[in-house]
Amino acid sequence: MKLSQGVEWGAHCAVTLARVEPGLSLSRRTLAERYALPEAYLAKHLKAMVNAGLLHATTGPNGGFRLAKRPEDITMLDVVEAIEGPVPRFVCQEIRQRGTAGLAPEDCVARCGVDSAMEAAKEAWRESLRGVTVAALVARLPPAARGPVTP
Amino acid sequence: MKLSQGVEWGAHCAVTLARVEPGLSLSRRTLAERYALPEAYLAKHLKAMVNAGLLHATTGPNGGFRLAKRPEDITMLDVVEAIEGPVPRFVCQEIRQRGTAGLAPEDCVARCGVDSAMEAAKEAWRESLRGVTVAALVARLPPAARGPVTP
Repeated sequence: MKLSQGVEWGAHCAVTLARVEPGLSLSRRTLAERYALPEAYLAKHLKAMVNAGLLHATTGPNGGFRLAKRPEDITMLDVVEAIEGPVPRFVCQEIRQRGTAGLAPEDCVARCGVDSAMEAAKEAWRESLRGVTVAALVARLPPAARGPVTP
Repeated sequence: MKLSQGVEWGAHCAVTLARVEPGLSLSRRTLAERYALPEAYLAKHLKAMVNAGLLHATTGPNGGFRLAKRPEDITMLDVVEAIEGPVPRFVCQEIRQRGTAGLAPEDCVARCGVDSAMEAAKEAWRESLRGVTVAALVARLPPAARGPVTP
């Protein structure tokens, strides 16, 4: 179970866009060049972030991408879920009810312990990512890299 | 990013083996039949659990599998990592050092914020799974399913 590179790309693009003056946008090409990323492949992830309501895409000669929310209001969880969907995903098949040792339905009113453990871990993971905002990531950048980014 | 069904299978097999009298084993076929699982595919996951030191495999007419440790000493994290490897896996490619906006090496002594956030989330996930033992899963079974399992 491996997360795609898109998570790293999307997060860094969001951090860069947080440094762009309000009202301005960065083109897909500029974003790709800033991190030496393959533009066509980056496009897919930027689109996912637009669909998730994290970025605005504008068209026209000065078109491009900008944040759709304040950097304080976008979390790493938002970015990861925009790009990867719900993760880490565990799908319980209720095997406890199957086979020669299958439990009766009346013994399965409570959630399966295995499923509960996986769900709790997922929530711990999500909660941790929810605690890191794009604004906090900008604040962690080295001083030389915290300034405004111009299109 | 989806976890394999092997996690559910492996965890339930560990719970079943925790109910087998010390010194006895359950065959792969019995384990598969108890949960109506495809035996050949289950074999792969049982082997991974043997390799991880969670199960002992014995040969001979009464051969099969038994826990290699006390149920109190096997956690959901052990089972998940035995079957899935390290998860959820995020591999930082240090794109902050690449491209037209690449940071200088001296600005990258501190770990990248994106990578740190992903690592912290992974540790939260692992810590949660580490808190659930096979013994605790047995204790959560419905009373009718907590008794000894005979080969």
